[in-house]
Amino acid sequence: MSSSASGSSTSTALLTDHYELTMLASALRDGTAERECVFEVFARRLPAGRRYGVVAGTQRILDAIADFRFTDAELAQLEQTAVVDSATLDWLADYRFTGDIDGYPEGELYFPGSPVLTVRGTFAESVLLETLVLSILNYDSAVASAAARMSAAANGRPIIEMGGRRAHEYAAVAAARAAYLAGFATTSNLEAGRRYGIPTRGTVAHAFILLHDTEEAAFRAQIEKMGTDTTLLVDTYDITRGIETAVRVAGPELGAIRIDSGDLGVLARQAREQLDALGAKDTRIVVSGDLDEHAIAALRAEPVDAYGVGTSVVTGSGAPTAGMVYKLVEVNGRPVAKRSEHKASRGGRKAALRRHKPTGTALEEIVYPVNNPPEPEEHDKQLQIPLMRAGQPVDDLPTLEDARQRLRHGLVSLPWEGLKLSSGDPAIPTTFL
Amino acid sequence: MSSSASGSSTSTALLTDHYELTMLASALRDGTAERECVFEVFARRLPAGRRYGVVAGTQRILDAIADFRFTDAELAQLEQTAVVDSATLDWLADYRFTGDIDGYPEGELYFPGSPVLTVRGTFAESVLLETLVLSILNYDSAVASAAARMSAAANGRPIIEMGGRRAHEYAAVAAARAAYLAGFATTSNLEAGRRYGIPTRGTVAHAFILLHDTEEAAFRAQIEKMGTDTTLLVDTYDITRGIETAVRVAGPELGAIRIDSGDLGVLARQAREQLDALGAKDTRIVVSGDLDEHAIAALRAEPVDAYGVGTSVVTGSGAPTAGMVYKLVEVNGRPVAKRSEHKASRGGRKAALRRHKPTGTALEEIVYPVNNPPEPEEHDKQLQIPLMRAGQPVDDLPTLEDARQRLRHGLVSLPWEGLKLSSGDPAIPTTFL
Repeated sequence: MSSSASGSSTSTALLTDHYELTMLASALRDGTAERECVFEVFARRLPAGRRYGVVAGTQRILDAIADFRFTDAELAQLEQTAVVDSATLDWLADYRFTGDIDGYPEGELYFPGSPVLTVRGTFAESVLLETLVLSILNYDSAVASAAARMSAAANGRPIIEMGGRRAHEYAAVAAARAAYLAGFATTSNLEAGRRYGIPTRGTVAHAFILLHDTEEAAFRAQIEKMGTDTTLLVDTYDITRGIETAVRVAGPELGAIRIDSGDLGVLARQAREQLDALGAKDTRIVVSGDLDEHAIAALRAEPVDAYGVGTSVVTGSGAPTAGMVYKLVEVNGRPVAKRSEHKASRGGRKAALRRHKPTGTALEEIVYPVNNPPEPEEHDKQLQIPLMRAGQPVDDLPTLEDARQRLRHGLVSLPWEGLKLSSGDPAIPTTFL
Repeated sequence: MSSSASGSSTSTALLTDHYELTMLASALRDGTAERECVFEVFARRLPAGRRYGVVAGTQRILDAIADFRFTDAELAQLEQTAVVDSATLDWLADYRFTGDIDGYPEGELYFPGSPVLTVRGTFAESVLLETLVLSILNYDSAVASAAARMSAAANGRPIIEMGGRRAHEYAAVAAARAAYLAGFATTSNLEAGRRYGIPTRGTVAHAFILLHDTEEAAFRAQIEKMGTDTTLLVDTYDITRGIETAVRVAGPELGAIRIDSGDLGVLARQAREQLDALGAKDTRIVVSGDLDEHAIAALRAEPVDAYGVGTSVVTGSGAPTAGMVYKLVEVNGRPVAKRSEHKASRGGRKAALRRHKPTGTALEEIVYPVNNPPEPEEHDKQLQIPLMRAGQPVDDLPTLEDARQRLRHGLVSLPWEGLKLSSGDPAIPTTFL
């Protein structure tokens, strides 16, 4: 019981939809399971008003595929619940993905129709990955896309991700990673520190102040333990008195104060004046409390040194999923596409490049049949890279730091309208050849 | 690497915020760590326009607390990253929660200020659980609250949860549980089937149709494997021809068709007429595709037999977190509360009852100091139950089926305005004594 509660099965194979397995069973029976297929992951559109999306989760997908194996425990479950027949169980017992995957590297921008990931293999081995691949890409990209807007709004000031409590306990870990990928400086999430090496930060909550008989006693306790270069939380009772007490206890060497409530712009200005008057000119001001990209931008002119962001980033700031889909586009070399009028999709394996002006500004996303590329131009950038070959991750995959750098470069390349926080169209058009 | 990617650490202890541990370190040093504390979990408000919330996640919290242990792996990580000192590491090595927890049972309704969970123990042992408790309650309750509105809108017609691909891969499992708790009939998520015994369902995606040379070949393959009591997906090419082919291949005994795109109301009516004309009078119609509670309600008059719901339920249908907080309200028997003007909170350990009319209709949520209850009235219902004593779950905790039943009863007890899908005030007021 407790192992299941904490998500501790080492197999990821049941993190999928029932129908992936019933499709497999039917396809094994009629022989279509071994047809060579191409599946493409893309977003039909960006979340309403967004001007770009940010790819995140690719490395987590590669890790999760390595664990996508049907051990005795998974097979027993499928047998007991009669999801599939015994022939399918036998096939699953030997399953491992042996195909190829290409995709946009993490930190790359994407737009409507961008082929963010391309999975090639037999129908059987590829269809099984649909749900897991989408879960990871859709959540991580939703968080990274929101976080990138916040990072841009913060304009170089550091942001700490502290939203784990407002997301599923494991989603919180992925969110910390995606936010860091998109330019956040640190996270409060310790598991994200362990898994991904992201720097973690934290000092105290209001509970710590309330635990003590006085605010001063709490400040003294914190400073004795953590030194004067810590962040004192000054808004439990009265902020002006809190700051006065903080500087009296810590001295003008106090590292930072944090304000977590109220009109943060007004309070930051008052706090800066008060700190300066008390000689604490180098004491930083950290603000938090329901911040999103718009609130961060609104504080740009205020004397704020760092932001703490929670709810809005882990929930994608109004767009909690990237809405990507995993579509079959080719069978045995033949393009296929759903043809009902309402959800048209384009058949055939595709690649993509981004065309730029000589100045480096992005002009358009060109999505083309992989065997029929457009005439190359000087400032084209190919967007997909190899990620997996014959079921094994390729060597020298980009790191999390690479992804951070890639995104910084990508954002600089957008036309200036593309960085506006207001609602609008995608920053560049997508052209389908 | 692969183990961390799949969330397979058996300890939940690092699914927390850095500051929980730095608070602990400071409090251990100054002796306040052993003060007896009461922490209360509540939502300051419901998501905008919502009329009630649904508690979910409590059982997952109890399971996660059992795994909240600092093994050598967690201690090594904390030591390497210098999060805490060696005295704190020693204390953590022996940590297990030994306190008491009371709370609203799963499936209970909640309103602004309802004391959904009360954690009692020393500061040290209780503060460490803050982040994990909130992550679980906030996500699971967000999903259950949205799902309950959808269940009410479906008015007895079954809903299958199929949104796993639009949520983090482990959040998807919790979402399936929360949706089932709130009245959904089944889920597509196989891991939710394994962990929680929820019935799983699924047939095929469009990829299965496209894999085959013709729609007819795909239908034949599916029926050979799964029998005629299956659900054929008829909207890959032309829906009218798809239905014609489906009945030709399966006969009038065909179990169901599914339509996943287009104007579902119009298409369902046309499909019903066509099926009836073909003699397939008992063939059910399943619809899916971006459904939320409003779209479900709009289909109430149409010949729809079941709904598939994805994105909207796993993302809380516009409210992806319940926004609950974990606040210190009592220290050594003394009420405490943050007093800055902007986020007032009420001190002291509290309990809650729901007052009803003799007809059974709920009148108000009364939140009162636990030692000073109001005069009892005949139709009062106490809302908190014991969940954990001395760190052990109590016997005979409510089951998932109990939670489903509790919610059904709870919704019936609301004033009729409380069940409206439109935006409004909480269905009943909260009175603080």
